[in-house]
Amino acid sequence: MSDALRIDRQRLLGALAALAQIGKDPSGGVTRPAYSPADMEARRWVARRMDELGMRVTTDAAGNVCGRLGEGDRAILLGSHTDTVPRGGPLDGALGVLSALECARVIREAGRRPSLPVEVVSFQDEEGRFKGLLGSRAFVGDLAPNEVASARDPAGVSLVEAMRGAGCDPDAATRVARPPGAYAAYVELHIEQGPRLETARVPVGVVGTIVGIRRLQVSFEGLPDHAGTTPMTLRRDAFAAAMRFVSRAAALMRWKGTADTVWNVGVFHLAPGVANIVPARAEFILEFRDPEMGVLDRLEKELRAAASAVAEDQRTPAQVARTLEVPPTPMDPAVRDAVSAGAAALGLATLPLHSGGGHDAMMVARVAPAGMIFVPSVGGRSHCPEEDTHPEAIEAGANVLLHTVLRLAG
Amino acid sequence: MSDALRIDRQRLLGALAALAQIGKDPSGGVTRPAYSPADMEARRWVARRMDELGMRVTTDAAGNVCGRLGEGDRAILLGSHTDTVPRGGPLDGALGVLSALECARVIREAGRRPSLPVEVVSFQDEEGRFKGLLGSRAFVGDLAPNEVASARDPAGVSLVEAMRGAGCDPDAATRVARPPGAYAAYVELHIEQGPRLETARVPVGVVGTIVGIRRLQVSFEGLPDHAGTTPMTLRRDAFAAAMRFVSRAAALMRWKGTADTVWNVGVFHLAPGVANIVPARAEFILEFRDPEMGVLDRLEKELRAAASAVAEDQRTPAQVARTLEVPPTPMDPAVRDAVSAGAAALGLATLPLHSGGGHDAMMVARVAPAGMIFVPSVGGRSHCPEEDTHPEAIEAGANVLLHTVLRLAG
Repeated sequence: MSDALRIDRQRLLGALAALAQIGKDPSGGVTRPAYSPADMEARRWVARRMDELGMRVTTDAAGNVCGRLGEGDRAILLGSHTDTVPRGGPLDGALGVLSALECARVIREAGRRPSLPVEVVSFQDEEGRFKGLLGSRAFVGDLAPNEVASARDPAGVSLVEAMRGAGCDPDAATRVARPPGAYAAYVELHIEQGPRLETARVPVGVVGTIVGIRRLQVSFEGLPDHAGTTPMTLRRDAFAAAMRFVSRAAALMRWKGTADTVWNVGVFHLAPGVANIVPARAEFILEFRDPEMGVLDRLEKELRAAASAVAEDQRTPAQVARTLEVPPTPMDPAVRDAVSAGAAALGLATLPLHSGGGHDAMMVARVAPAGMIFVPSVGGRSHCPEEDTHPEAIEAGANVLLHTVLRLAG
Repeated sequence: MSDALRIDRQRLLGALAALAQIGKDPSGGVTRPAYSPADMEARRWVARRMDELGMRVTTDAAGNVCGRLGEGDRAILLGSHTDTVPRGGPLDGALGVLSALECARVIREAGRRPSLPVEVVSFQDEEGRFKGLLGSRAFVGDLAPNEVASARDPAGVSLVEAMRGAGCDPDAATRVARPPGAYAAYVELHIEQGPRLETARVPVGVVGTIVGIRRLQVSFEGLPDHAGTTPMTLRRDAFAAAMRFVSRAAALMRWKGTADTVWNVGVFHLAPGVANIVPARAEFILEFRDPEMGVLDRLEKELRAAASAVAEDQRTPAQVARTLEVPPTPMDPAVRDAVSAGAAALGLATLPLHSGGGHDAMMVARVAPAGMIFVPSVGGRSHCPEEDTHPEAIEAGANVLLHTVLRLAG
């Protein structure tokens, strides 16, 4: 057992503070969109620290930075990402990468020689400036050439152009997949980005499943009648139909979903969009998430039936199109057990929970047993300058990561 | 009594067909936006027909075309407008102007000499390319210079430019108001633009009140939380608040409104408008109409209270701003009686109804006793190429207009 080893809290907090200076936004927060000069500077900074630790450092054609300690074909992989959303916080992604580096340093400085090499990774474009999880998708061989060729950021910059500007290689980026069996496990420490750990006053979360996501684009067609002269009973009001559908959807989510089901309508448009014309079209996106594929399937079926019923009842034809499907990704039971055992050995309480957001672990889970450790987000906030985690929780999470690695690497 | 006089149906239909050729849209319908070449050509066409009838013809600085038959300081005014919405129908406005001309012609050809002069008007920009009811507002002295100076159409063309291009005078347009007492009455024949007369199978509607309109711009403020990681119960979802408010508004309209109350949500926006972010802002326009000012006041009060209750309940601060208020315009009882008596003398059934849309009569009612006659719209449709009224109904409406004038002009 390796109960005596601990990470150095001040050193880890210092590294987080130093990295947060790169891309520090004059209006608050950290802005390091994938492939931007700030992002690439942060990656070079990470690579230098890897080099100082005596790691073998590689940056692949997609921009993923890796550093490996120890010899062998099969490694334990730790990490996350160092790109950020615009005006994001100092911890999302960075915590997982810098904690992994701290763990590697503690292991090396303690003279431990784990039976498996320890590799640390910072994946590229997790936040989706161009495509969410782009780096980890490339890492597992899931990135196709036409996706690279066509992707643009919201400002219209092409991925190809951004990659070339950053010294990456868009042609080779789809051929960076590691050989099968290259990793014995992947562990990612991340902030929760939600309020459950804080509410429960528990410092460490053990992720069960990264939830699946469905997006349905729903539309109802009405008639653009004059909103003054057309009696209410004779209207075919696309907005009224949408309201009725959303109301039914809320009931469905409550009664046919689970305690873990969450949903959102974040996009909603009316046409023609004129105050005195009855809406002829309402179009919106209903997103819902659950850890169980069966629940997602059942909800989608019920939602489609509800849309048809409303369409018939209100004489407003409906269309429902699935525009996104991300299957749930269960974390590997052996990795989860290692996390729980590591926390227990440290005397730390843990809370089993699901991840409502996507993470690089979703991709790596396709090629290796994967697990995630969460630490509490203050006020549940993330993707904003206020994003924060208490230092004791950061220390606790990094120590759990360390002891998980020691268990997995043997 | 003048029971023997009748309008000439074929002549009136021929005039409507001829006018519909001016601005005939290649893609269907009629396109004569105010001050466009087609609109001005139609106005010159109307002016020529007035001249042929021996009327004294004037076009004021705002572009209102008037023709007067007979002598005297105080006249009976008949008319409507000849501008149209893009791809509008052949009857909206045109029916009121050409029926008035037909009435004047019948009176003249019959050798009648009414005790009051009969004047026919085609008001400018009723449809609001620049400002709804612009011509009739100028006509009653309601148009202010700064409105003229600042108005632009949706394409960005300035009213001043459009007026000058049409040979009108933007400076003088605000000084065209007729002297007080210039009109003993105003009568406007118009298509219903709704389905009630058709549903009731009644050829003629006698308008009681042109309903009042209120527009409330309502917004709720939420928090832009991550829609995957934030539990449903901890969200401050601006969309959910808006849904709840609209649901309450629907109940209020039903239980605190009247059988005449109509309402619409035609504009609805969410921000930031991203599928996986809980809406931080929902903003929409709720428009409602009723013939009674007291009902409008009561509804607005109840709606504001509902917004406050939802805001408190959902922790989503609300703002409610009244962005439009058009008071109800009751039609003059004596004019309504003349319309009803005229119809009765012709053996035509009438239906008392309210006008849910705005008309030039709203403005003229400020300076003269005003009334409106409606004829059925096929399928309730208007502002579209399919806009239609059966020839018998057109004939019936024009005959009622004729006999109303004969009664009012003595």
